[in-house]
Amino acid sequence: MNPTEINILEEVELDNPIFIEALPGIGHVGKLAADHMIDELEATKFAEIYSYYYPPQVFIGEDGIIKNMINELYYLKDIGEDNIDLIILVGNTQGLSPEGQFELCSETLEFVKGYGVSKIFTLGGMATGQQTSENPKVYGAATCEENIESLKEAEIEIRSNDGGIVGASGLFLGLGMRQGIHGSCLMGETPGFFIDAEAARAILEKLAILLNIEVNTDKLEERAEETREMLIKAQQMEQDILNKAAGNDRDDLRYIG
Amino acid sequence: MNPTEINILEEVELDNPIFIEALPGIGHVGKLAADHMIDELEATKFAEIYSYYYPPQVFIGEDGIIKNMINELYYLKDIGEDNIDLIILVGNTQGLSPEGQFELCSETLEFVKGYGVSKIFTLGGMATGQQTSENPKVYGAATCEENIESLKEAEIEIRSNDGGIVGASGLFLGLGMRQGIHGSCLMGETPGFFIDAEAARAILEKLAILLNIEVNTDKLEERAEETREMLIKAQQMEQDILNKAAGNDRDDLRYIG
Amino acid sequence: MNPTEINILEEVELDNPIFIEALPGIGHVGKLAADHMIDELEATKFAEIYSYYYPPQVFIGEDGIIKNMINELYYLKDIGEDNIDLIILVGNTQGLSPEGQFELCSETLEFVKGYGVSKIFTLGGMATGQQTSENPKVYGAATCEENIESLKEAEIEIRSNDGGIVGASGLFLGLGMRQGIHGSCLMGETPGFFIDAEAARAILEKLAILLNIEVNTDKLEERAEETREMLIKAQQMEQDILNKAAGNDRDDLRYIG
Amino acid sequence: MNPTEINILEEVELDNPIFIEALPGIGHVGKLAADHMIDELEATKFAEIYSYYYPPQVFIGEDGIIKNMINELYYLKDIGEDNIDLIILVGNTQGLSPEGQFELCSETLEFVKGYGVSKIFTLGGMATGQQTSENPKVYGAATCEENIESLKEAEIEIRSNDGGIVGASGLFLGLGMRQGIHGSCLMGETPGFFIDAEAARAILEKLAILLNIEVNTDKLEERAEETREMLIKAQQMEQDILNKAAGNDRDDLRYIG
Repeated sequence: MNPTEINILEEVELDNPIFIEALPGIGHVGKLAADHMIDELEATKFAEIYSYYYPPQVFIGEDGIIKNMINELYYLKDIGEDNIDLIILVGNTQGLSPEGQFELCSETLEFVKGYGVSKIFTLGGMATGQQTSENPKVYGAATCEENIESLKEAEIEIRSNDGGIVGASGLFLGLGMRQGIHGSCLMGETPGFFIDAEAARAILEKLAILLNIEVNTDKLEERAEETREMLIKAQQMEQDILNKAAGNDRDDLRYIG
Repeated sequence: MNPTEINILEEVELDNPIFIEALPGIGHVGKLAADHMIDELEATKFAEIYSYYYPPQVFIGEDGIIKNMINELYYLKDIGEDNIDLIILVGNTQGLSPEGQFELCSETLEFVKGYGVSKIFTLGGMATGQQTSENPKVYGAATCEENIESLKEAEIEIRSNDGGIVGASGLFLGLGMRQGIHGSCLMGETPGFFIDAEAARAILEKLAILLNIEVNTDKLEERAEETREMLIKAQQMEQDILNKAAGNDRDDLRYIG
Repeated sequence: MNPTEINILEEVELDNPIFIEALPGIGHVGKLAADHMIDELEATKFAEIYSYYYPPQVFIGEDGIIKNMINELYYLKDIGEDNIDLIILVGNTQGLSPEGQFELCSETLEFVKGYGVSKIFTLGGMATGQQTSENPKVYGAATCEENIESLKEAEIEIRSNDGGIVGASGLFLGLGMRQGIHGSCLMGETPGFFIDAEAARAILEKLAILLNIEVNTDKLEERAEETREMLIKAQQMEQDILNKAAGNDRDDLRYIG
Repeated sequence: MNPTEINILEEVELDNPIFIEALPGIGHVGKLAADHMIDELEATKFAEIYSYYYPPQVFIGEDGIIKNMINELYYLKDIGEDNIDLIILVGNTQGLSPEGQFELCSETLEFVKGYGVSKIFTLGGMATGQQTSENPKVYGAATCEENIESLKEAEIEIRSNDGGIVGASGLFLGLGMRQGIHGSCLMGETPGFFIDAEAARAILEKLAILLNIEVNTDKLEERAEETREMLIKAQQMEQDILNKAAGNDRDDLRYIG
């Protein structure tokens, strides 16, 4: 097998689709927003991505059925006022090692470029570390001034000289930019330590304005609750791994040697 | 040399064998169960697996004889009521890095697929962190509903939406599933901080029901005692490595640069 | 894509150029010195280096515009009393993993060798951990006695049997040396925990003597201030990553397995 | 360049040489013993090994001259009562990552096999963590019973079921064993936290018996003193790296993302 495998489930032709990345991250804000959008707008899954760069594990799902670590691509055709096409990337994990993340994002971008992707949105959370207001802000950054203008028109607060974007949400924009595909990152303000439906609603509303589409967010809190339950156990496991793996890495020169 | 080498010791033909993975893990439950089964049923070793993905070390065994880190494949033919064939994977280590574990499990699975493997069981422990009852429970998960039904018939408790399975026991099921080879994981409830013969007995009994075979578990406690002695020293060494290697990893940007 | 990509922006012919490395490091001494020199002498950027070995992230720059992790090559022709040519390597990051750093430095060196590089200077800081004097010292080391003599003539203090040089500033000299390209490392004495304009001025003055060129250092403090502001946020992010990533590395053998 | 490069400095024919590994390790016992033996018996360097698997740094040596991380191969012809040939591996570092150590040891072994290597000795220290007696013990382990017998004849204490041997001293024996080249490891008892000339003398005396050669150990303490001075600074640097690099590794899924 190759380190990364993309299985195409359905052949589809898209018209300059916009690519939306929403892999798990801070407060699961991006993931929650995209999962909800996929459900509400009835997007169709057309490809699955498996990779050796994911954490070496499986999840135990509903009724004891095992689920692989996976990234999934969905499409939507002719939606909204402007009859646009979308490709949405969701999943239950990101690449684990730095080189692995680069490899994986690069291969995924190469794949969606084959569908004529013309623009990128990456969705994430911005951890404040403290309780946020009832109406969490949405922050933005972009690869070019034109996109910054669009963000401003949607009343998204621009972050300036302000740290960075780590992981897939950063890499897709950085890799895209090098190939002339521009894009923006939307970051929902969130305390960062729970599944944040309010932050997800906030970025969904902004994304809907930017894409000129409508997404009903009524059932978002319900979905957040389900995700929460699923994640509590997953996070316990992850914490166990962290505790056990702490420092269990490379050997040094002070061994018998 | 290749990163992973599989040396075939004996050419053997098997009839749709069931593949059982039992590499070292929590409480050495799976390993202990499989080692015992290999002894009791007089399984034959037919292949050895060496890999650069193992920890970079050797063990000092009986009478000062050095042993390589190794995974080993045993077979059993025509056993039990149903005259089934088995391939059993045991060893003294697993892959160390995430990518390494994926590579190694994938190559091993590819190899046993060459023998027509039709089904997978992976054996492990489930750490409770506290003293377990005299009759430890066996938990299960599986890649499909049919296998979940079999586990239920054997009165194995199904874990649902319940974290994950990390390492070889998870990866073999996940990788197998992607290729249409289904399977189950049996996890013996164990405190997790000692070699647990009772948990091993519990999963062996369930495995025997599932495979419709008989395995005498009388000498299991004796074997556990031997394993314990061997591991106490190995774990002291491992702890030393952990202590010394803590943080000894990658350099950052704050060096002389 | 390849793990490392070097994009040539301008074809240029150089005459036995001297290669100066000044990637981010202790106190950002080397980077600050080289950035200033590029500005003052109006060097021209002629190549950009992208790599999977960088940290998997992007920075948010001025007005919310996203910047890739990058290394950049500038050239200067016919400068100073001796009409020398220079290639200067600057950037916002270094390779992250040990193997990655070797790969990246080796590919970059291979590339600049194509321009006939005859000599190497690497610029860095030497952390003292405490407040330094108003006129920080410049320390030096070199790959051959001839270069040591030049350093002494410029009244640079030679470090002897004195630890090492970690990262790009060490690797370029070590890799160059193996191929007959000799060089020196200049290290400005710095407390190490802030952007140190004085240490940068000190190494720039010594470098100017060694290259027989003139560089006005009047605006160096101003530049240091800008860098400081930019880095405060970047470092907060980096610290967050460190805190979160602590120990989140490899799995060990004590999992369910 | 290749990740690992072996530069041959002198073509030499050897007669079934014995391969001795003595890279830096606990108490620098093996390295000190081998460096001394090379000096006393006037061994000739015939090959140098460079690798991307070493730590990404250089050392500053005598008079500010930079030294690469390196492994070196020396030979001795027709020495001792039995007119044997030796290949001795020394250096200032070992591979850093687990996979890197396997790769490097494997390539080095492949190289010395080309000279007809018939037997391996690996030299190291065994850390006791406390002050050892005036006459430190030498412990041994081997890949076969025949070698264990030789060790016993030389009054070396056999370690049995006793942890393991991590790093090059373990891997050369493990890799050699898989190819039919047998060998032994000699471990000098040492507190482990200083350069231990007494432990080095102890293993040199045992090695001399095993090889039936004579090595004058009078100047060993003097050499230990030099090594001590050199290492104090190197270790300070290493410690700095450890402190800074602690946890600076991989990003996880909790980033903006």
